[in-house]
Amino acid sequence: MKGVDYQMIILKLGGSVITRKESAFPIINSKNLDRICREISEAKPVKMVIIHGAGSFGHPYAKKYEIGQEIKNQEDFQKKKLGYSLTHNSVKELNIRVCQYLLNYGVPAIALPPSSFILTRNKRIESADLSMIENYLEMGWVPVLHGDVVLDMDENIKMAVLSGDQLVKHLAEKLHPGRIILGSDVDGIYNRDPKTDPQAQLLPLVKSLEDLESLQGARTVDVTGGMTGKLRELLELAKMGIESKIINADQPGLLKKSLNGEKVKGTIISQ
Amino acid sequence: MKGVDYQMIILKLGGSVITRKESAFPIINSKNLDRICREISEAKPVKMVIIHGAGSFGHPYAKKYEIGQEIKNQEDFQKKKLGYSLTHNSVKELNIRVCQYLLNYGVPAIALPPSSFILTRNKRIESADLSMIENYLEMGWVPVLHGDVVLDMDENIKMAVLSGDQLVKHLAEKLHPGRIILGSDVDGIYNRDPKTDPQAQLLPLVKSLEDLESLQGARTVDVTGGMTGKLRELLELAKMGIESKIINADQPGLLKKSLNGEKVKGTIISQ
Repeated sequence: MKGVDYQMIILKLGGSVITRKESAFPIINSKNLDRICREISEAKPVKMVIIHGAGSFGHPYAKKYEIGQEIKNQEDFQKKKLGYSLTHNSVKELNIRVCQYLLNYGVPAIALPPSSFILTRNKRIESADLSMIENYLEMGWVPVLHGDVVLDMDENIKMAVLSGDQLVKHLAEKLHPGRIILGSDVDGIYNRDPKTDPQAQLLPLVKSLEDLESLQGARTVDVTGGMTGKLRELLELAKMGIESKIINADQPGLLKKSLNGEKVKGTIISQ
Repeated sequence: MKGVDYQMIILKLGGSVITRKESAFPIINSKNLDRICREISEAKPVKMVIIHGAGSFGHPYAKKYEIGQEIKNQEDFQKKKLGYSLTHNSVKELNIRVCQYLLNYGVPAIALPPSSFILTRNKRIESADLSMIENYLEMGWVPVLHGDVVLDMDENIKMAVLSGDQLVKHLAEKLHPGRIILGSDVDGIYNRDPKTDPQAQLLPLVKSLEDLESLQGARTVDVTGGMTGKLRELLELAKMGIESKIINADQPGLLKKSLNGEKVKGTIISQ
């Protein structure tokens, strides 16, 4: 087994941080994106993979065309096929913006769209050739992946939505990064839904879903499973001994501190 | 050896047709692009791969950062690395537009950026996993590739510009399409430069570079080699028994006719 690469960081940027996620059509959160890319550049990462969510650039299309749901007939397949392409083209638009903001601050970002090299089977990654990610990493580029649509080997669905969170899990498992940071729009995982329950408390450490009193943590309807989906992926990693941390990337300065290895508010997902 | 797939068409759309190629900054030729995508949809292609040039979205950056030229030192490498990313991000912008216009007319276009899966050695394709292109083709998508920057295994240059024309050659060699059509901004190959020489004659058939009286066919400075570069790739194909045809995609209706198998004005490159 490959040893841990302590220099490497996998950074997830939530779709809710860089887009107006609740919007029915694609809107970028330019202010956040600009600040976040500045913080990344100031942290001078040596070896980093960035994975961003699709937010309002992906979810409205994926939902409308029911990507990942059973294909009813040939007509439905043709419709979903167009919907798949529309979803990807829209997410790519967001990806261009993310890369452009990173480049503005001198971070050599290079896009690696999952639809080009990943296949799922029943919505879980089945094959993914990571050699290009490794090539770019070794030469000092910052590969940028994103939540995307991908071809699925299950004949009933043929295509699937691949969440940024599943990507985090898969890449962490294969590339053994020293640290995994997830920039969210909340401080971390709460025992109850902080948006509706004033008694909700931030959990500094989560080891299993049982640590939560309720699973209302996901505020918005999210085709990729929201906070619960995220947590399930990270708990899988924790089981393998790979720790990750959710922090609030909406709060200026926190991401930079976290990238620099400082201890900041958030939730650690660990064994 | 794989037999010829008579249903399959490889279509190249020249950067000079879909962008204002002579521009120092990226400008799309929306009118042409819209019409061309409509013609493609009207031809109802069964199995098609589209490769588009980078035009003014790629060449100004690739030239400015001297991508593909020898890396002088570490500073030059850092500069070229950013230039590489800027070039790719700009070409991706064009690719989004191409896919969007195709989608507008119901063609299920899916982008497969060469920088994600192709490596060159001294500027020639060394490795390219075409399985995703084949997956999409089998399911009825139209894969859309484009001239791009790619990593190069030659340590002195480390990165290269991959022309759409080299892509045409490589894909034709591997996928054995029934037909190869190159949509250009001229009628085909002339014996002399038609822009400066009123005596220039269109050649209906070209078998070797000797068929041309002069190699001034390439009007604009093109980092990927212009018409001569194109012709060299196609002559390589001809040597393998694979025929291709250059037509004028600037002329409304010609591309549709050609896709439909009608005989139109142009230059056939053959043995």
